[in-house]
Amino acid sequence: MSDISAVNRSRSTQTRLVLPPDTNHLESIFGGKVLAYIDEIAAIAAMKHANSIVVTASIDSVDFVSAAKVGNILELEAFVTATGRTSMEVYVKVQSIDVTTGTTALTTESFLTMVAVNESGDPIPVPGVSPETEEEQRLFDSAPARKEHRKKRASVYNNHA
Amino acid sequence: MSDISAVNRSRSTQTRLVLPPDTNHLESIFGGKVLAYIDEIAAIAAMKHANSIVVTASIDSVDFVSAAKVGNILELEAFVTATGRTSMEVYVKVQSIDVTTGTTALTTESFLTMVAVNESGDPIPVPGVSPETEEEQRLFDSAPARKEHRKKRASVYNNHA
Amino acid sequence: MSDISAVNRSRSTQTRLVLPPDTNHLESIFGGKVLAYIDEIAAIAAMKHANSIVVTASIDSVDFVSAAKVGNILELEAFVTATGRTSMEVYVKVQSIDVTTGTTALTTESFLTMVAVNESGDPIPVPGVSPETEEEQRLFDSAPARKEHRKKRASVYNNHA
Amino acid sequence: MSDISAVNRSRSTQTRLVLPPDTNHLESIFGGKVLAYIDEIAAIAAMKHANSIVVTASIDSVDFVSAAKVGNILELEAFVTATGRTSMEVYVKVQSIDVTTGTTALTTESFLTMVAVNESGDPIPVPGVSPETEEEQRLFDSAPARKEHRKKRASVYNNHA
Amino acid sequence: MSDISAVNRSRSTQTRLVLPPDTNHLESIFGGKVLAYIDEIAAIAAMKHANSIVVTASIDSVDFVSAAKVGNILELEAFVTATGRTSMEVYVKVQSIDVTTGTTALTTESFLTMVAVNESGDPIPVPGVSPETEEEQRLFDSAPARKEHRKKRASVYNNHA
Amino acid sequence: MSDISAVNRSRSTQTRLVLPPDTNHLESIFGGKVLAYIDEIAAIAAMKHANSIVVTASIDSVDFVSAAKVGNILELEAFVTATGRTSMEVYVKVQSIDVTTGTTALTTESFLTMVAVNESGDPIPVPGVSPETEEEQRLFDSAPARKEHRKKRASVYNNHA
Ligand SMILES: CC(C)(COP(=O)(O)OP(=O)(O)OC[C@H]1O[C@@H](n2cnc3c(N)ncnc32)[C@H](O)[C@@H]1OP(=O)(O)O)[C@@H](O)C(=O)NCCC(=O)NCCS
Ligand SMILES: CC(C)(COP(=O)(O)OP(=O)(O)OC[C@H]1O[C@@H](n2cnc3c(N)ncnc32)[C@H](O)[C@@H]1OP(=O)(O)O)[C@@H](O)C(=O)NCCC(=O)NCCS
Ligand SMILES: CC(C)(COP(=O)(O)OP(=O)(O)OC[C@H]1O[C@@H](n2cnc3c(N)ncnc32)[C@H](O)[C@@H]1OP(=O)(O)O)[C@@H](O)C(=O)NCCC(=O)NCCS
Ligand SMILES: CC(C)(COP(=O)(O)OP(=O)(O)OC[C@H]1O[C@@H](n2cnc3c(N)ncnc32)[C@H](O)[C@@H]1OP(=O)(O)O)[C@@H](O)C(=O)NCCC(=O)NCCS
Repeated sequence: MSDISAVNRSRSTQTRLVLPPDTNHLESIFGGKVLAYIDEIAAIAAMKHANSIVVTASIDSVDFVSAAKVGNILELEAFVTATGRTSMEVYVKVQSIDVTTGTTALTTESFLTMVAVNESGDPIPVPGVSPETEEEQRLFDSAPARKEHRKKRASVYNNHA
Repeated sequence: MSDISAVNRSRSTQTRLVLPPDTNHLESIFGGKVLAYIDEIAAIAAMKHANSIVVTASIDSVDFVSAAKVGNILELEAFVTATGRTSMEVYVKVQSIDVTTGTTALTTESFLTMVAVNESGDPIPVPGVSPETEEEQRLFDSAPARKEHRKKRASVYNNHA
Repeated sequence: MSDISAVNRSRSTQTRLVLPPDTNHLESIFGGKVLAYIDEIAAIAAMKHANSIVVTASIDSVDFVSAAKVGNILELEAFVTATGRTSMEVYVKVQSIDVTTGTTALTTESFLTMVAVNESGDPIPVPGVSPETEEEQRLFDSAPARKEHRKKRASVYNNHA
Repeated sequence: MSDISAVNRSRSTQTRLVLPPDTNHLESIFGGKVLAYIDEIAAIAAMKHANSIVVTASIDSVDFVSAAKVGNILELEAFVTATGRTSMEVYVKVQSIDVTTGTTALTTESFLTMVAVNESGDPIPVPGVSPETEEEQRLFDSAPARKEHRKKRASVYNNHA
Repeated sequence: MSDISAVNRSRSTQTRLVLPPDTNHLESIFGGKVLAYIDEIAAIAAMKHANSIVVTASIDSVDFVSAAKVGNILELEAFVTATGRTSMEVYVKVQSIDVTTGTTALTTESFLTMVAVNESGDPIPVPGVSPETEEEQRLFDSAPARKEHRKKRASVYNNHA
Repeated sequence: MSDISAVNRSRSTQTRLVLPPDTNHLESIFGGKVLAYIDEIAAIAAMKHANSIVVTASIDSVDFVSAAKVGNILELEAFVTATGRTSMEVYVKVQSIDVTTGTTALTTESFLTMVAVNESGDPIPVPGVSPETEEEQRLFDSAPARKEHRKKRASVYNNHA
């Protein structure tokens, strides 16, 4: 597939209630739950872009900026920012809403690399992506720097394998 | 608390079966499931080290090196590698075992930063850590470099906030 | 609260993957799963409108027009169409997307009545709602007829209590 | 299959504990959880009647008359009230029991239409049903009125499609 | 409480569908799932008898006589067979139904000891029980022998503590 | 397979957090949850020993010696103690750790019999086991007595079938 799709085609949102089983003693959501939600919405965005099954190749580092509490609403948004031959970079933003006050806070944001695969699990080509909004353009332009950074981090982490 | 604990005190393992609800179409485990398991075992290791509740401050980038399939056994191991005043760096290694062949493969490894908190969620001091094995020493020694790297990554990622 | 909010304020979407545990033998999603998702997104829309906790007072009849299969994406959209003193009518639309073909099909749609409550579970007043789009206006205008219908159905169903 | 079965053959009950993950902030069960339980027990009743897989074609409106709380016991009962060629009407009654007082309260009741299907998902004929108790007879007799009502409701709801 | 209740008061049933997440590779239900269902229905029966919260003190040995498969219906029945001062013996029978053939097979049966407790978790007295049917009488009469057996087993098992 | 493996090969551990959905009103874990965890870790140990799929044939009686609470860490350890032709006896020990005090308490211990099966579910031979530590030797030596006891219990329990 050599087509080019608008970023908007992959844009996906997921609004969820933070429920007791997702939280610890302090009624604060587990980081692991948020990571699982991030991976699910990123996969959906990539599937919409590639019209195929996808697997998660990597997730960049994630900083949990603020806690989401039981009873809060969690809003996740994801879209494909840039593409390689078979891989897609997906940006995910997570916000929490305190229902009673109506206040919105950034929980975290992250970049994942999803790879399109066929039924045997082998990577297959994906369409390119064309940014339209200002934010899409900025993320498209900074994608090569993040790709570079991903390669470099190997040198910091690999020495313990 | 100004004590120093052996790394070994926090060492925690979790052996799990990969079950159908954890997997996609290709019977391959979701990245998000693995991330949730990583966060749980890291929290347990940090709780054992700090004797307190903990929250996840961040997770470093994670590369999914190989897929785990339905019916495989997943083995996670975690321990505290280094400490700050209230934070702990936790190393997690994930391996999958193909039961019928007995083959073991590395799925992924990751570093998380967990923070000890009291019942109101405020950070509290943690004991230091003393490495004993060769691997523990290596990870202890390389911890400052990873800390540095965590600060620098901000410059690559923050410009889109 | 005597304010009036735009319908758009409550608009909430949830995009999900249909996973094996949600499905039967035929890899087709259970009606009960879809109903649970409908109730969750309706509650979220009502919470955003009312800035309070809500409980489900009723759900109107639901026809499952087409099946959603494992691997499909399910897209739910909900918004408050009309309000009473303490109750809100919420419209929910569920569509399924076949990823490999990109085809979208209507799964079902439904109307729920959610009631805003305080911490003791007593009904509390909600803001009114002002429709903006043509669809919002149509649903706002037809709300009284549905309310009437809800009362009448009692006579068909109540005789067996 | 042109046999006729007693209503009693499909009668199925499900007694459950209301657990924390099923409930909201107020420790009150989610409507969506109750709906999922209703669909499961209705499917079981229909499977017993038809000796086949079934899918949910529709659920009639559901009024949540009273709340069930964490620690309560939920008792669901279902049976096939009447049949068409391939469809079955299933009646479900949900009661909650407050364990400490022993008080029973009606939570809700509902009618679902389940359709028997073969392995390819195509509708297949079901046996008829013969009512025996007074309640079974009453629901059998009123089934045509509800069927009529189901067709009419289309006119109230369809104009927004 | 010094009352005596009929066995029938505690009788509880649970009919469930065996779903993919409950099963292994061979689409056969996990023993652990069945044990969890047995404990839940036993707790419900004991709660109904004692009108209080209960905890599981022990479960006697369980032999899994036949496998239940995905798509089968699982039918659990439980009732209190005999009582001590604060403890209740609960008998649970589990059967599986193959829907397409209509065949019923015994999966397993078990005896559990549940203890009634107050809000601080301390054991509290329970009513006695009066058997009515022939099966209830037989199980009531054989209860002392099982109690004896429970004490003796300690000698076989305790030497490895 | 006529090989003999060290007990150590099957040794498996699972460290878990006790979470709200696993617990009752008193924030105390359900016996059924512990039983499900015991079955999972026993299956894993047996799979590692036999290099095959396994099913649970039976679980010996389980006494719940102390309660585990929300926020506790649960540590399960399992290993194959003795083998028959196709069956394995697995010993499981469950301890709970109160994080804030660092106290460890025995929750329960149990013996399960797991049978190795092929893809059609037929029993297949397993390797023998050779004990190495003092505890392994003791459990190996007492295995025949437990096997005998399992046969005898039939006479106490079977008369009600
Ligand atoms: C991701 C995976 C398919 C890549 O396979 P591979 O043999 O390395 O294939 P290729 O070398 O052709 O790489 C395919 C693409 O993935 C990218 N990629 C591979 N590893 C990556 C990583 N860790 N981070 C970012 N991108 C990665 C490559 O750059 C390439 O991108 P491009 O086609 O756009 O240039 C493979 O590593 C895999 O199956 N991993 C497990 C995925 C999984 O199951 N995740 C869930 C939890 S385990
Ligand atoms: C919904 C509930 C709060 C209503 O309580 P109530 O004592 O009837 O309160 P009111 O008479 O003041 O009614 C409050 C509003 O709910 C509406 N309402 C009540 N029952 C309704 C029903 N079955 N369908 C639609 N609206 C309903 C009323 O019309 C009123 O609306 P308005 O304020 O906009 O005019 C109460 O029935 C309840 O708690 N039910 C259980 C809710 C629940 O827990 N659901 C989850 C699963 S059980
Ligand atoms: C239900 C379904 C099989 C009906 O298919 P269809 O092509 O309309 O088949 P038919 O016209 O032969 O109808 C079969 C029976 O279903 C009944 N039926 C169809 N839609 C119905 C509805 N919305 N409400 C009640 N009954 C309905 C018909 O009256 C007919 O009954 P009868 O044989 O007793 O006279 C089909 O609509 C479907 O697969 N829906 C999705 C079901 C599903 O997956 N539900 C779970 C969540 S999405
Ligand atoms: C069950 C428990 C409350 C008993 O506490 P205790 O201090 O031994 O209390 P008592 O000695 O007063 O015993 C209370 C009753 O339980 C019975 N009992 C205690 N242990 C038992 C066992 N292992 N098997 C059967 N009955 C037992 C006693 O015989 C007594 O019965 P009676 O009053 O009818 O004569 C306690 O062991 C406990 O809390 N265990 C954990 C329960 C739990 O949380 N289970 C879930 C998973 S861990």
